[in-house]
Order: sequence, then structure tokens, then C-alpha cells
Amino acid sequence: MRSLLLSSLCALLIALQPVVAVWPIPKKFKTGNTTLFLHQNLEIKYNDNLTQYTFGYEAATFDSHDIVRAGVSRALSTLFGEQFVPWMLHKPGDKFEPDVNGNLKWIKMLEITQTGKDDSEKILKPKAGEVDESYNLTLSADGEVKLTAVSSIGVLRGLETFIQLFYQHSAGTFWYTPYAPVEIEDEPKFDHRGLLIDTSRHFFPVDHILRTIDALAWNKMNRLHFHVTDSQSWPLEIPSMPELHKKGAHHPAFTYSPTDVDRIFKYGAMRGVQVYFEIDMPGHIGSVALSHPELITAWNARPYDAYCAQPPCGNFKLNSTKVDEFVKRLFDDLFPRISKYTSYFHTGGDEIKYKAYTLDDTVKSDKEDVLKPLLQKFFDKSHKQVRDAKLTPIVWEESVEKYNLALEKDVIVQTWTGDGKVQNVTSKGYGVIDSNVNYWYLDCGRGQWVLFDNNEYARGWPFNDWCGPTKSWQRIYSHDPRANLTAEQAKLVLGGEVAAWSETIDPLNFDPLVWPRASAAGEALWSGNKLESGQNRSQLEVAPRLFEWRERMVARGIRAAPLTQLFCTQRSPEECLWENPN
Amino acid sequence: MRSLLLSSLCALLIALQPVVAVWPIPKKFKTGNTTLFLHQNLEIKYNDNLTQYTFGYEAATFDSHDIVRAGVSRALSTLFGEQFVPWMLHKPGDKFEPDVNGNLKWIKMLEITQTGKDDSEKILKPKAGEVDESYNLTLSADGEVKLTAVSSIGVLRGLETFIQLFYQHSAGTFWYTPYAPVEIEDEPKFDHRGLLIDTSRHFFPVDHILRTIDALAWNKMNRLHFHVTDSQSWPLEIPSMPELHKKGAHHPAFTYSPTDVDRIFKYGAMRGVQVYFEIDMPGHIGSVALSHPELITAWNARPYDAYCAQPPCGNFKLNSTKVDEFVKRLFDDLFPRISKYTSYFHTGGDEIKYKAYTLDDTVKSDKEDVLKPLLQKFFDKSHKQVRDAKLTPIVWEESVEKYNLALEKDVIVQTWTGDGKVQNVTSKGYGVIDSNVNYWYLDCGRGQWVLFDNNEYARGWPFNDWCGPTKSWQRIYSHDPRANLTAEQAKLVLGGEVAAWSETIDPLNFDPLVWPRASAAGEALWSGNKLESGQNRSQLEVAPRLFEWRERMVARGIRAAPLTQLFCTQRSPEECLWENPN
Repeated sequence: MRSLLLSSLCALLIALQPVVAVWPIPKKFKTGNTTLFLHQNLEIKYNDNLTQYTFGYEAATFDSHDIVRAGVSRALSTLFGEQFVPWMLHKPGDKFEPDVNGNLKWIKMLEITQTGKDDSEKILKPKAGEVDESYNLTLSADGEVKLTAVSSIGVLRGLETFIQLFYQHSAGTFWYTPYAPVEIEDEPKFDHRGLLIDTSRHFFPVDHILRTIDALAWNKMNRLHFHVTDSQSWPLEIPSMPELHKKGAHHPAFTYSPTDVDRIFKYGAMRGVQVYFEIDMPGHIGSVALSHPELITAWNARPYDAYCAQPPCGNFKLNSTKVDEFVKRLFDDLFPRISKYTSYFHTGGDEIKYKAYTLDDTVKSDKEDVLKPLLQKFFDKSHKQVRDAKLTPIVWEESVEKYNLALEKDVIVQTWTGDGKVQNVTSKGYGVIDSNVNYWYLDCGRGQWVLFDNNEYARGWPFNDWCGPTKSWQRIYSHDPRANLTAEQAKLVLGGEVAAWSETIDPLNFDPLVWPRASAAGEALWSGNKLESGQNRSQLEVAPRLFEWRERMVARGIRAAPLTQLFCTQRSPEECLWENPN
Repeated sequence: MRSLLLSSLCALLIALQPVVAVWPIPKKFKTGNTTLFLHQNLEIKYNDNLTQYTFGYEAATFDSHDIVRAGVSRALSTLFGEQFVPWMLHKPGDKFEPDVNGNLKWIKMLEITQTGKDDSEKILKPKAGEVDESYNLTLSADGEVKLTAVSSIGVLRGLETFIQLFYQHSAGTFWYTPYAPVEIEDEPKFDHRGLLIDTSRHFFPVDHILRTIDALAWNKMNRLHFHVTDSQSWPLEIPSMPELHKKGAHHPAFTYSPTDVDRIFKYGAMRGVQVYFEIDMPGHIGSVALSHPELITAWNARPYDAYCAQPPCGNFKLNSTKVDEFVKRLFDDLFPRISKYTSYFHTGGDEIKYKAYTLDDTVKSDKEDVLKPLLQKFFDKSHKQVRDAKLTPIVWEESVEKYNLALEKDVIVQTWTGDGKVQNVTSKGYGVIDSNVNYWYLDCGRGQWVLFDNNEYARGWPFNDWCGPTKSWQRIYSHDPRANLTAEQAKLVLGGEVAAWSETIDPLNFDPLVWPRASAAGEALWSGNKLESGQNRSQLEVAPRLFEWRERMVARGIRAAPLTQLFCTQRSPEECLWENPN
């Protein structure tokens, strides 16, 4: 009863405050209730240089000033273009907009100060901790805006926050914030805040990937894990081996040319979203068999369940100099092109079923004592090449958890199979990116896609997939990769990634499955899902911001899913609160 | 082992046949392997009248010839417009298209014979069993097409099948079928094959509803259950009481005017998709309180869980002459406008929590012996008005299952709460529309949308919704509303509906949640999910057709979700079959 009263009191207090829907929520955040208008001819000052806002300015170089200038152009053209009149956040009939007649208080200048000097090498492709993403933003009641950051990327983060303070007025070309004065200090909890996309099971056009990078940047997410190949298809053009995509792509137009790759990686780098490729090996590489059958064992072997996790099977042979030569050639072709823009390369290594190697003429065994040294050699060789290209290797957790390989400690391990794995892997001394399937797999819970004939019907029924249920945004939000770790282990956790594995995702349903659920992970990684006191952030505070953020992303062209009914976005959150009726 | 061998043999036999992806599958269906081309200047003969195919012809009247002429126009312009080149159904590199050079065999005439005379009253708004939807379609190896049906609606069904036989050629304006000669006899298993949409929790624009009607017609589904109002909002304009939508809609533009209603109902009728409204009462009607607070009890009462199933609460007072007058005025306004196009009206009646009536000044009780006679009167009065307008009342199952009301036997009961309900309700002698939540609720399984504050966090975790998991297409397909019934009970089952309740569905994610899963129910209702032998249709036969059908719907502009990866649509189904590895 006492907690009910307390809860009601808290709910009341929250309801009395205006919703200030910045997502992710800044570390320190004070607002007022003065309304200010933003002029389209806003002047921009950057470290004492006066710059005009220019629509559609794209940076030609990676000079700090250019990065910032392009960031300002993007931020303001997003705000002026999104036409976000937030009627769906107010009770029908409520007059929530400021008067646009009479004397308006205008914001006339955005003053940006970058206090540090960007490291021209690292600003494009920072490893975890190598770029300072913090920023301070103040907006005085009389319209002075000051955005201060150490790095140009910090400025970009601050700009995203800045434009979230404004709404468009239904009267037309007026943009206002009702929240001045504003004081914000902000910085991320985790350095690595990513999304995994999978372009082997379904192809995603370049434009789709670019708009997804935009959405990541809006969410202050900074990594795009690009799982580009797998056993299903090989869409990546490797100019020295064009047969790979010519025989391996789902369709002649479903490929990424070197120009496409350059465009995607550069587009991300400019926005502080580092793109990195995964070419998964020695499993999940069957599509190479379509052009190089001699390199692959168990290609499309059946019953697939004996040889791999899903059809079609296909592993690199494990004791083959031809495979070594192929991998070298592949990396020699690819790495010089991407290492301008990225510090990472993911070599996969997940889900190997040992039985596949009984079919491998270079191995002919499924015995661990035979396979383990071969796997160790395979990983060591490929990682040496990765390092030689000045890239840091990333692998899936099985390498150290299941195959028990001894990898160098620069290798970053991506955990995924469930609870406790971050503890295990950090206790072995590896840096970790967490994608715990129980929280951060966005594809789960919509049903089985492999077929069951009538003789196995009962085994398949009711045809749920392996990792259901669908992870609710609240469950996604509840995950903290650093939970239950020692201080030393916690330091090894770089951050996490939500994963949009694409067995049943293509460009037609990607947006509503990824957004705004990925945003929930984005805030957990940037802001943390708990208050400084250690208490969970209340859904009464979090949910209305996420609902608003969904609407703003929709206004920007992302087909994000609704998380609640319109009645609830239009009312105070406690009108849609579950309360104990007893 | 024996069953494995048998299964492999069956798989092989199926693989050797070409996929003939008609959805839903006709009752009798023979195909060959002659390729025929369809000419854009196809001549159309209808009962000895020669008609030219005209792009975009809309019927002005409901004359049979006009219905057919519009149907032909729609079918052919769909085919010629969809640009469905089925590369995604063939292994990359396979040459699957016919040669378009040289002597092509052309289909030059489509000969349509309607053997019966439409009942001009019933053809627009048939009740279950009142229109004959059967048709025969033959396509000879030398290009003669004969489509025969008893009714004009049967002709429409046959036209949908006809255009599914064709693909567009990548060389341009060539449309071909590789399946001639074709012989089809077809008719539906169930008379009522519907989809429920919910425009109170989120608004769906008229255009969205019209395109959904198109998609229903393609799937030979013939009912759109339009749950138009609820406690969340009142989007329906009632000219005699404009305050209802003015105060009850989510947004001034989020309403259905009489013109909109006429357009939607007529659009459906023309396509053999009967639209019918549900105005749910005496529960689920809270939005009336926004304009008529005196009629409603427990409006937005809290904790909601004591008074209703979800926020906001709101029931009609149960012993109020003002409510009677209101309902009469509402029906008097609405029924004359819709009864041209529909034979049904759904009065709801679900999910009443008796405690709401403790707050009702006309009742002040939650006792069953007080409430039951009042509920009986309420249902009887409203149903009398429904009947007076020559409409048939439909209600949710609680009326006869939970409140144990004695309703007239013309009332159709919609079952939903789970297994066994069809048995119960048919054994009481009522006609049934089945929407078993365990199979046919399309909204389930994506997470909770009501909020849980920290004090109830543990109770909410992990924030799944009440009816998860998401129903896989296979599970949807597995449901037979007539399973485990006596012959007499089975006769009372009109059919079923899949339901897209819209707490977390709006126009942005509607398509991938509804399609192609609704198609799975569509086939279960039209064709039955079992062979004549009683055996389940094999997924090896069903799935490739559904995968193809999804691609064709996508080509027509529906953002249907992918059900498997592209590798599997491009290969024979047994390459994505789960087989026992032991």
C-alpha cells in the first residue's frame, strides 16, 4: 500500500513536468519553460569562424571543420524537413502550441566550440575509447546556444540532442522549443553501441543501409556491424575474384561494389558511425562453394542439422593451403579499401558443428583433439592478416568458450548465446561486445522458417523459432552488459550490439522490427538503464520519451513500429499504467 | 527410417513437379508444361457479349455485367502492372524464362460464362451461403481460356486464379504461363473468410483500407470486419451527432465521413468483400464519454484492471433510457447508409468486467443476478434494431459463454478466447465465426504496451503481451474451425477471421504483420488445410506457394513480410527442410 502511494506520488510529479523527450537521455539535463523559436537563417559559429548553415552540405574532407559543417547542415535540414508537429503527444483539443503572433524570442546563433584537436587518423575510425563523444549544450532563456565538445564527433552528438528540443508549429515554418533554458552535460556509458545487419540471407540496397546509418546516428549509436557474407549468398564484390559475387549473389544486381563499400563506410565515418565488416569463417561460408567448390566442406549437406545450424551448410576446409591462399587473396583485396574507414574486422567463428569436418578430405574427423589445433591455426593465421592491415580482430564467443582457443588478448569477443557469457569471457581477459540473444536479438519470436514435412510435423509444431519470444522494448532496455561483473571485468566490456539477423527480414519489414527497439538498446548503452542511485529508470519517464522518439523517427522517414496505442501517447503515462487492482 | 524414406520420396516427387503457385490452392487442379503468352489486347467474351479489356474500368452499377467487366479490368491491369518477374523463385543463373523470339503461342480471348443469374439484392451483401463462389477455369494448350461460374462473384474468384498463372518476362511486355493446359474446379470450404481491422486504437486512412480490401480479394477472402470504434477513439462521423467524432477522434482528420464509409463499403462489395461494422457495446465504448459523459460508466477508471481489460475503461450505463435513446439515434443514422452494402452488424459485447457497474448510478452492483437481466435487455433491444434494419447481429462469444444470455438463434457468435469455444457455441445452436486467439490473432507476441512502474516491475517482466507467442504462418494454417465437431455443429460454422487488433499496429507496420499470415488463414478457409484424404497438406507443397504468393503481393505493393530467406525461395523446398540427423 505504501509503495502504491509512493508510486502514485511519483507518477503525479512526473505528470506535472513537461515531457522533454530527448533520446537517449543526457547524463545531466535541466530544462525550463520558456519558449524560443529557431530561425532558418541561424548563424553558426565554429571556434570563432562564422559559417552559414547550408542545406545539404556534404564534407569533402575529414577536416574537423568540414565534419562539423556537414553535421550542422544535416541536423538543421533534418529538423526543418521532418515537419514534426507533435499533435499525437497531446490530448485531442489541447492547445499545446505557442502563439506565433506578436513578439517571438528567436535563437539567432548556434555557437560551437571544439576544445580539443581531432586526431585526423582516429576521428574516422576510433577504437573504443579513442574518441571523446561528450558534449555540453546550453540554451539560455534569451536564446544563446552554446555547444561545446572536445571532438568533432562530440559536436555531432550534441547537434542530435539540440534538434530534438524543437517541434514544428502547425502554422507553418516555425520551429520552437518550450523547454528553455536548457543545460545539458552528456557522455556515453559505453563506447561501442551498435547494430548488426545481415546482407547474406536477404540483400539490403545501399540506400537502405545509408538511411539506417542516419537512424543510428540520430540514436547516438556508433557502430554498424555489417555481416556481409554467409552460406546463403556472397553479395560482396572482390575485384580480384569476381566469380565470388557472380556465382554467389542472389541476383546480379544484389552486390556491393567497391564504390558502394567506400560510400557506405565513408558515410558512416562522417556521421560518427563506424562500419565494419564481418566475413564469417570457417563456418557460415558455404556460398564460396558456388565459385570455389574445392575450398568448402559440407556444402548444402543434408540433413543440415547434422552439419550446421541452418541450411545451407558450408565450412572452409580446415587443413587446406588453398583455403589459406584464398583467405589471403580475399583480405589483400578488401583490407586496403576499408582500413581507411574502420579499425575492426570480424572474422566470425560461430556455430561450427564438428561433424562437418568428417566430410572434409583435409581432415576427415570430428574429434576435438584433431580439430582444436587446426582451428587454432586457422584463427591465428587470419588474425595475423587482420592485424597486419592495422585492424583489430573480432570473433564470436564460441572461439574462446566452446573451441577453447588461445587467442591474443587484442582480439575482441562478441558474446551472444546467453546470460553469464560476458562474465566468462571477460574473466579470460578479452574485451567484449555483448549481443545477448535473450535481450538483443531483434529477429527472434516470429516463427520458424525451415520446413517440416508431415512426418516431422509434431516436432515442429507450433513452429516457433529457436529464440522467441520477440524481445519487448522493455526487455531490451533492461539489459546491462556490465551487470554482475567485477570492476576489472566491467572495464573489458566495450559495449553491445542489437542484431537484426535476416532469415525473415528484408527491406520491407526491417524498419518496424529494428526501430524503435534498437533505440531502447541505444539508450541503455549511452545513458545506462539505471539512475545514478542504481534504481531502474521508471517506465513512466522512459516510455513517453521513447514513444515521442518513435514519432520523430517516423517523421524522418523511418517506418518505426508503434509501441503503444495513440490514446496512450496522447495522455499522461499513468493513464496507461498497470496498477494492482487488489 | 521407413517414414524418412517415404518422406524423401515424396519430397523428390514434389521437387520434380513445377511449382504452380496458386493461392489459395483450388479444389481440383491439373496443369501441363506448355508455355502460352497473354496478349495485352486480349478479347473478353462475357455470355456472348464481346468486351474489350479497358484499363481502370470501375463499375457504375451493380449489374452483373458491370461487376464482371470491372473485375476483368482490375485483374488484367493488376497482372500487367505488377511486373512480377520471378527471379527470386529460381536458382541464380538458371534460365527459367521461355524464349520470346520465334513463334509464340498466344492467348487471344478470355471466354467468361456466367451460368446463373445474380440476385441483385444478395450479390452485394450475401450472407453465408447466399452467393455461389465456385468457378471452373480451363486453359487449353492452344490458348483457349474458359472461365465458368454461377455468379458474378464466382467469376471474380476465377479471375484472381487466372492471373496467378502468369509471370512477366524480364524481356519486357510479355506475360506467360508455363503451366498450360490447365484445368481447375474450385469452390470454398467456408463461406465467411475475413480479416478484422481496428481503427479505434490507431487510425487507418481510407486508402489503406481500400488497398487492404484489394489484398483480401486477391486471397479470395470475402469479409472485412471493421471494428470502427472503441474506448480509445471514435473516428466514425455520425451526422446527427457530430460531437461524437469531434470530441472522440484522435485528430480532426482521423475520421470516416459518410462519403468515406460509402466508398469503403461499396469498394468491398464490388470486389466480393463484404465490409461490416462493429460498434462494440456495452463495454469498449468509453470514447462516447468524451462527448456524452452521462452515458458512460467507469470512464478511464483506475486501476483499469479492476474495471476493464485495458485502458481506458468505459461502458454504457446498463439501465439508462438515455443510453437506449442514444443507441437508437446512432443506429437510425448509420444503418440506412450501410445496409445497402452489408447484411451484418456486430454489436460487440466482449470483455465486460462486472465491477464497472458498481460505478454505474443506474445499477450500482457487480452481482450477476442484477446484471444478467440488464445485459439480456440491452442485447435484445439493440439486436431488435439491427434486425429492423434487415441486418443480422453478430456478437462476441462472452454473450452466450460468460454472461449466459439467451439470444435469438439468428445471432452469429464470434468465438475468440481459445480452444473448445466453437464446440460450446455451436452446441448451443448458434452460427459461429471463429477467431481463436491461439491461432488467428495477428497482433500477439510482440510485447506489452501498458506501463509498469518500478514497484510492479517484477510483475511485468519480461513485458510479453498476454497472447504471445506471435502466431507463425504454419500455426495459423493449422487451424480448422470445424475440427472436432459433430456434423450438425460443423454446419453452424460459417468460417473465421484473422484479427489485427491495433494496440501496436498502425499503417506503418500493418502490412508485414498481416501479410502473408492472413493468406495462410485464407487458404485454410477456402481450400482447407488438409487433403481430401484427411492428411495435412505438406509444407513442402504449401510453403513454396506461399513464399511465391508473398512475392507476388509485394510486386502489387503490399509490404508483406518474408517468411524465409532468399536462398530457400530460390531452391527446391527440401533444401530448407528440417530432417532428423539421427
